[in-house]
Amino acid sequence: MNHLQNLQNWLATNRYDVAYISNPTNVAYFSGFFADPEERVQALLVFPDQDPFYFGPQLEVEAVKASGWTYPAYGYLDHEDAFALIAKQVEQRQAQPKRWAIEKDDLPFGRYEVLQQAFPQASFPGDASRFIEQAKLIKTPDEIAEMVAAGKEADYAFEVGFKAIQAGRTEQEVVAEIEYALMKRGVMQMSFDTIVQAGADAADPHEGPKATKIQPNELILFDLGTVHNGYMSDATRTVAFGQPDEKALDIHKVCLEAQLTAQAAAKPGLTAAELDHIARSVITKAGYGDYFIHRLGHGIGTSTHEFPSIMEGNNMELQPGMCFSIEPGIYIPGVAGVRIEDCIHITEDGNEPFTHTPKELQYIK
Amino acid sequence: MNHLQNLQNWLATNRYDVAYISNPTNVAYFSGFFADPEERVQALLVFPDQDPFYFGPQLEVEAVKASGWTYPAYGYLDHEDAFALIAKQVEQRQAQPKRWAIEKDDLPFGRYEVLQQAFPQASFPGDASRFIEQAKLIKTPDEIAEMVAAGKEADYAFEVGFKAIQAGRTEQEVVAEIEYALMKRGVMQMSFDTIVQAGADAADPHEGPKATKIQPNELILFDLGTVHNGYMSDATRTVAFGQPDEKALDIHKVCLEAQLTAQAAAKPGLTAAELDHIARSVITKAGYGDYFIHRLGHGIGTSTHEFPSIMEGNNMELQPGMCFSIEPGIYIPGVAGVRIEDCIHITEDGNEPFTHTPKELQYIK
Repeated sequence: MNHLQNLQNWLATNRYDVAYISNPTNVAYFSGFFADPEERVQALLVFPDQDPFYFGPQLEVEAVKASGWTYPAYGYLDHEDAFALIAKQVEQRQAQPKRWAIEKDDLPFGRYEVLQQAFPQASFPGDASRFIEQAKLIKTPDEIAEMVAAGKEADYAFEVGFKAIQAGRTEQEVVAEIEYALMKRGVMQMSFDTIVQAGADAADPHEGPKATKIQPNELILFDLGTVHNGYMSDATRTVAFGQPDEKALDIHKVCLEAQLTAQAAAKPGLTAAELDHIARSVITKAGYGDYFIHRLGHGIGTSTHEFPSIMEGNNMELQPGMCFSIEPGIYIPGVAGVRIEDCIHITEDGNEPFTHTPKELQYIK
Repeated sequence: MNHLQNLQNWLATNRYDVAYISNPTNVAYFSGFFADPEERVQALLVFPDQDPFYFGPQLEVEAVKASGWTYPAYGYLDHEDAFALIAKQVEQRQAQPKRWAIEKDDLPFGRYEVLQQAFPQASFPGDASRFIEQAKLIKTPDEIAEMVAAGKEADYAFEVGFKAIQAGRTEQEVVAEIEYALMKRGVMQMSFDTIVQAGADAADPHEGPKATKIQPNELILFDLGTVHNGYMSDATRTVAFGQPDEKALDIHKVCLEAQLTAQAAAKPGLTAAELDHIARSVITKAGYGDYFIHRLGHGIGTSTHEFPSIMEGNNMELQPGMCFSIEPGIYIPGVAGVRIEDCIHITEDGNEPFTHTPKELQYIK
C-alpha cells in the first residue's frame, strides 16, 4: 500500500473528514514533491474517499506537476488569501468537514487559528504527527535502497575525511575537504552539519567543528551523513592520528565492543530498551557508564530524528524494516571522546548496516 | 535599550504575565545563545518585572552559561517532564500567570496544548511573533556591523565563484568551489543553499544548482550569502561567460537599471511599495514587466525573511536602521534569467549596501 492510501485508510478508520499536511518533509513523503515554502502556505489536503490536492505558492505549481503528482495542484499569489482558496477547494470535495487531522508537532498555533477561522465548524481531534511517526516506522524495500545509496556516500565521505587529516589543519578545514569532495560528485545536501572533532574537542558530543588545529597522537571523531533522494545516512567513526595515549585507546576499545555487541544483537523481537541496555552494560562494566550520556540510537529515514528511539523505557519490539542508529559514545571532559555509529535496518533474522567503513581503530599516518 | 528589556517593556505595557519564546533564532536574539534543540524542549521564559530564565536540554546548560547568559539556566533529562519543571520555575516567579505571550508563527499546536495543560489557568492573548517582527525591524549599529562583515564574506564568495567558471564545469561544481573556499576561511554556514544557474536554468528563480554544464556565451547567475555571528548576507550577481546574445544582454541592462535606480532612491520617508514601484516601472517600461514575478525585496537580519517586505501594498515608510534586499529579476523561460541584488541598510539620508562586488555586467573569459 502506498503512503497516501495508508493515510486515507487512517482517516477513514478514525472518521476524520480531512487531513491538513504541511510539514515539508511530510508533504514530500505523501506527494513525492519537496519544497520548503518558508513563511508561505503549502499543504496537502487529503480526504478519506476523495482525491487529495496540493495547495502552495503559484511558483511551485509547475514543479509539482513535473514531479509526478497526478492529482490537482492549486497555487496562490502573495497578495491572495490562501486559506479562502483552500476552503473553496475543500468544500467542493467535502461540504462542511468537521473532524480534521493536523500535524500537532508542526502546525504553528497561528496557522491553526487561521484554519479554525476559515472552517468555523472544524474541530481538530486527529494528530497526523502520531500517525506519520508510525507510518514511517517500517521502511519499504524502495526506501531501504535509497538509504543504502546514502550510506555509500557516507562511506566515501569518511575515505575523504581520513585522507584529509594533517597536523596543523583545523577541524573546519577537514570538514571543507569532505563537503567539497561530495559536492563535486553532486551530493549537495548533508543530513546535518558535518562534525569533525580532534582530541578533547570530541568530549563534547554537541559541538561543531572548530578552528582547533589537529595535533599528532590524538583521536579524531567524524560524524556525518548525506541526503539521497530525501533519505538520510548518518555514521560516526573515531580514528587515531599517530599514537594516542592509553586512556584514549581504552575508551575506543570499550566503545567499539559496545557497538559491535549491540549491532550483533539487533534483530526482530528484541526491544529498543533491551538493545540500549546491551551496549550500555558493556560500557558500564568497563567503568565508563557515567560518560555515556545519551541514548543508544535514533530512527532514521526522511529525517534523523524519527522512531524508533533506542533508549531506556522504550519497550517497542524491533521489526523488519525498522531503520535506526547504534551509536554508543564515551566522553571524558577535557581528555577525549569516542563515538562509533552505524545505522542499520532490521531484517527477518538480524540486521544490515548502511555503512561499511571499518570500525576497528584505524591509525592515520 | 537591549532586546530583552524591550520585550519586558512590551509585556508590561500589554499586561502579559509571561512570554514563552522557543524559536531558536529568537531565543538567540534575546539570550545571545543559539542551539537547535530539534524535538527537545528549549525556551526562554520572560516576565515583565522578574528576571527571565532559560530552560532546555541538560546538555546545553553549560554552554548557555559559557555564552554569557547571566540569568538562571535550567536543564532537563530526556526522561523528565519538561513542562512540569518549567511550571515549577514559573510559579516561583509569578503565581498563576494568566495572560501569556507565545510566538504564534512558530509554536507547534501540540506544544500549545501541553502548555495549556501545565498552566490550566492560562490564556494566550499575546503574539510574540508580531512583537519580534517589529523589534527586529530597526537594526542597531552593532547588528549592522555584523551584517557588514557578512557582506564582505559574500563579496569574497563572488570573487571565488567568478574565478571558478569554466566551460564544461557543472553549476554544482562551481558551488563546491565557493563553499570550499569559505569553509577554509572558517565560514561554516551559508544563509541559504548557494545558487549558481547558467543560461536558461536562471529563468527559474526557484531552482538550485544542477549538474548542467556551463557553456560559453551565456549568462550565469550567482545568489549567495553567509551567516556571521547569527547575522546574514544575501546578494546576487549575473555575469557573462564569453559573449551572450543580444536578448540576454538587454535583460541584464534593464535589470541593472532597475536595481541601480531603486538603490539610488531608497531613503527614509519613501514607502516599501513606492520603492518596489520604482524598480518595477523600469522593467515594465522596457517591456519585461511580465517576467518580473516576485517582490522587489525582503528584510534581512537574523533571517532572510523578516520585515520590511518591499512589495506592492506595503505602505510602511522606510526608516534608518531597516535592512532589506533590492533584487529585481527578469526571467524568460527557456531563454535566460537575470537577477541583481544588494542588501542595504537605510541611513539618515539614503542607504549603504552590505556588498560591493560590481553590478555592471562583468565578462568572464
